[in-house]
Amino acid sequence: VEEELAHTLGEIAGLVGGRVVGDPGFEVNGISSLDEATRADISFFIDRRYSGRLKSTRAGALIVGSELPSFQGHQVVVARPDLAYARTAALFAPCSGEARGIHPDAFIHDTSRIGENVTIHPGVYVGEDAVIGDGVVLFPGVFVGARVRIGRGTVIHPNASVLHDCTVGREVILHAGTVVGADGFGFFQDGSGSVKIPHIGSVRIDDRVEIGANCTIDRAALGTTWIKEGVKTDNLVQIAHNVVVGEKTLIVAQTGISGSTSIGRGVVIGGQVGIGDHLTVGDRAMIGSQSGVAKSVEAGGVVSGTPAVSHRLWLKISRLLIRLPVLNSRVRSLERKVEELERRLEGRM
Amino acid sequence: VEEELAHTLGEIAGLVGGRVVGDPGFEVNGISSLDEATRADISFFIDRRYSGRLKSTRAGALIVGSELPSFQGHQVVVARPDLAYARTAALFAPCSGEARGIHPDAFIHDTSRIGENVTIHPGVYVGEDAVIGDGVVLFPGVFVGARVRIGRGTVIHPNASVLHDCTVGREVILHAGTVVGADGFGFFQDGSGSVKIPHIGSVRIDDRVEIGANCTIDRAALGTTWIKEGVKTDNLVQIAHNVVVGEKTLIVAQTGISGSTSIGRGVVIGGQVGIGDHLTVGDRAMIGSQSGVAKSVEAGGVVSGTPAVSHRLWLKISRLLIRLPVLNSRVRSLERKVEELERRLEGRM
Amino acid sequence: VEEELAHTLGEIAGLVGGRVVGDPGFEVNGISSLDEATRADISFFIDRRYSGRLKSTRAGALIVGSELPSFQGHQVVVARPDLAYARTAALFAPCSGEARGIHPDAFIHDTSRIGENVTIHPGVYVGEDAVIGDGVVLFPGVFVGARVRIGRGTVIHPNASVLHDCTVGREVILHAGTVVGADGFGFFQDGSGSVKIPHIGSVRIDDRVEIGANCTIDRAALGTTWIKEGVKTDNLVQIAHNVVVGEKTLIVAQTGISGSTSIGRGVVIGGQVGIGDHLTVGDRAMIGSQSGVAKSVEAGGVVSGTPAVSHRLWLKISRLLIRLPVLNSRVRSLERKVEELERRLEGRM
Repeated sequence: VEEELAHTLGEIAGLVGGRVVGDPGFEVNGISSLDEATRADISFFIDRRYSGRLKSTRAGALIVGSELPSFQGHQVVVARPDLAYARTAALFAPCSGEARGIHPDAFIHDTSRIGENVTIHPGVYVGEDAVIGDGVVLFPGVFVGARVRIGRGTVIHPNASVLHDCTVGREVILHAGTVVGADGFGFFQDGSGSVKIPHIGSVRIDDRVEIGANCTIDRAALGTTWIKEGVKTDNLVQIAHNVVVGEKTLIVAQTGISGSTSIGRGVVIGGQVGIGDHLTVGDRAMIGSQSGVAKSVEAGGVVSGTPAVSHRLWLKISRLLIRLPVLNSRVRSLERKVEELERRLEGRM
Repeated sequence: VEEELAHTLGEIAGLVGGRVVGDPGFEVNGISSLDEATRADISFFIDRRYSGRLKSTRAGALIVGSELPSFQGHQVVVARPDLAYARTAALFAPCSGEARGIHPDAFIHDTSRIGENVTIHPGVYVGEDAVIGDGVVLFPGVFVGARVRIGRGTVIHPNASVLHDCTVGREVILHAGTVVGADGFGFFQDGSGSVKIPHIGSVRIDDRVEIGANCTIDRAALGTTWIKEGVKTDNLVQIAHNVVVGEKTLIVAQTGISGSTSIGRGVVIGGQVGIGDHLTVGDRAMIGSQSGVAKSVEAGGVVSGTPAVSHRLWLKISRLLIRLPVLNSRVRSLERKVEELERRLEGRM
Repeated sequence: VEEELAHTLGEIAGLVGGRVVGDPGFEVNGISSLDEATRADISFFIDRRYSGRLKSTRAGALIVGSELPSFQGHQVVVARPDLAYARTAALFAPCSGEARGIHPDAFIHDTSRIGENVTIHPGVYVGEDAVIGDGVVLFPGVFVGARVRIGRGTVIHPNASVLHDCTVGREVILHAGTVVGADGFGFFQDGSGSVKIPHIGSVRIDDRVEIGANCTIDRAALGTTWIKEGVKTDNLVQIAHNVVVGEKTLIVAQTGISGSTSIGRGVVIGGQVGIGDHLTVGDRAMIGSQSGVAKSVEAGGVVSGTPAVSHRLWLKISRLLIRLPVLNSRVRSLERKVEELERRLEGRM
């Protein structure tokens, strides 16, 4: 089996648009970090901080940004070695992905429409009038509710749930345990308690989105919670009802975005951030980890902290915060000196 | 199909206890926000901030708190337009909810007892001696452990798990992926590591509780973790072993409550809050988002921040926190002035 | 049935290595807290704070660290009453755990290897070439991917997922909804968006680890995300790609550890902590709840706060933080006094 995974450097150079320094016929059967690579592996050098490891690596070949005279093995030289690493690693991914059809132990509603070349594992549920595109892979335990549409080439991992009437685009990845389309959290109070606001909207997830494991993306009260093209979220992220997340935005783990907030495109949101409701975060803004965002953020803004302010200011505040005891002592010292000054001036009056 | 969802304004007014200004026979087949409504929709005006949208809305009818002379379409006037909106929206919810019986691909233990008019989807598991009340809906992938009791009219969404010996009341909603009854986190240390404290208690969830998606509500070590009547939680909320949450309390997303803490009734807890163990939060208290609560909170208390203090004080602290660099400069300026004063006084002695 | 759970004090004393004061033949059929115990229960006294409850408890017997002359009932005296409580409670745990074999409604791939005395419930999926050890229990909805290895005596609770190529040791507990082996969050940016870094590494979980409910432990990009022997995590914990967590470390709920960070052995991490990427946390360090750790922590370090500093310093900072309004007033008062001093000195020049 191992042999099937072997690739020549010439093949890899062709894939990534690079050139081989050394033997294009040299075969590698895996990719590893500099530390862990063996003679049969290709590795990569994309981070200057690891240059010390170049001497000790046993990798048979390296992906590099420019030729390294000091390295003894073969090299694939390419303008963007990071992207070349990503593409090469994909060669060695263990999941082959050939279509396996619909397993008889999956439940597929009669009225659903299923595309070509799908893989639907045992224990999957596909509801009424759902539409499953070509090449879709649904792992065991996946729930696809009534009238859901799943676009071509999308992969949904085990035990994830896409509830009724939601739409998932093409080449989307939903990781295991994620829930798309639970009711948003909204209630009115009457005399006797909470009256549930029916959530009759839906969720729309556009093409090439990737959602981490055990995330929750809530259904809109009315209208649509909308995750636009190319958005990537990490695990355990909460996206509330009626939120819009713009194209290519990145959201790190355990962040929560409150209801009706609109996030722009190309935004980067760190981990464990909380963003209030009905706010706007402009395009290309960056929000530091663990921030608490209670006001809208302008396009290109870089904010951190709780309450979130400009990242530069937050760095200053952080440094001063941990020196609060010193500041307090300085104030006490000033108080003593001023008292002394007052006494002396008083005494001389 | 659309026609089946049409309702007259007279019908809606009857449902919500309002009166029609305009034509009671006017039919709407959906409900939408002011922005998105079409001529065939009813919309609603419940938030003054959106009064600007009244001019541009294309809604055929509006639910309003008092007659709006400026609005051209039909109106349903009602004392509480928010509640009327919630009730009207429920009319248009796509899930009909008629009982579908027990699907043959569900696993139902012989010793369990199943009520009337239930809907048990394929892929559900119901364990030994479990009791499922009338009208209960269990979506695919739901796990109901041994001796669990589920009350009348409760709905459990896909891939949620209720572990052995837990009790769920009537008309409860558990959203997808939620876990009720995992062991609490408790260990004693002996010389060689952690000794697990067996969690032989259970979880009790009372009537009309709603728990968000991917939440975790842990089983008590001994006794009961208890979520009382009418509590509503958002997604990804953690409730530890032996916690008690009082009636009608609201808990926003990603909040965690540590072991043996007792939360009163009518409490409102914001998102991403952490509450320590063995504390008491009094009735009707309010806890701001991202707070870190390390001390008990009295009834009616309004607290925020880390460490949590009165909300009013926290607002002051927040404002001063982001002005720490200014405060620091003021102290430095004072230091220079005092030094100068000292020098001058010294020179004149 | 109740009778089957009855145990004599002599039996319990034997189990925990203690001695009986009173009647060794006295039978108890449950264990409860001091408050909730009945005459047929054994209770325990391990926390001085609850000594007031000794007078009012109705427990028929007590586990104690030293004989209590004031208590009327029977006693089991033992050096470590906490450990004795844990062991006694295990006697009364409702899940018997006898092997039930492989249910016909589980899906077991032909090429997998299944040990002796397993319990594989309906709705479980076991993939190609997976290896399931002796005595393993897989609850309904569990997904075990291709080539996964599960060690002897491990229990995986409902709807948890262990993805392809991951390894789980012996006597591990994975609680419901947890996801092991989702892709890590890693992308390179090219001109048009995010290029996914293929995650072709895996997750290794060693013996006697316990992972809470709805956690996420990501697969390494290359190499291994490694959770070492005896680690215990609470619920909703996020462990990113390539993280290493040392032996016997404890991690409380909702904490997140970023990519490639290495946590030592015997570390204790509070709830809702965020730890940055590529950091090192030394052995036996302690990290307070809600901390934001942006720098490595030395062995034995005790840190808290955001940014995390020594716990002692953070306590000081916290106290001063909530007195910022007072500090601000003191500075304003100093400013007035200094101005007055300057005026007076000026006037006298």
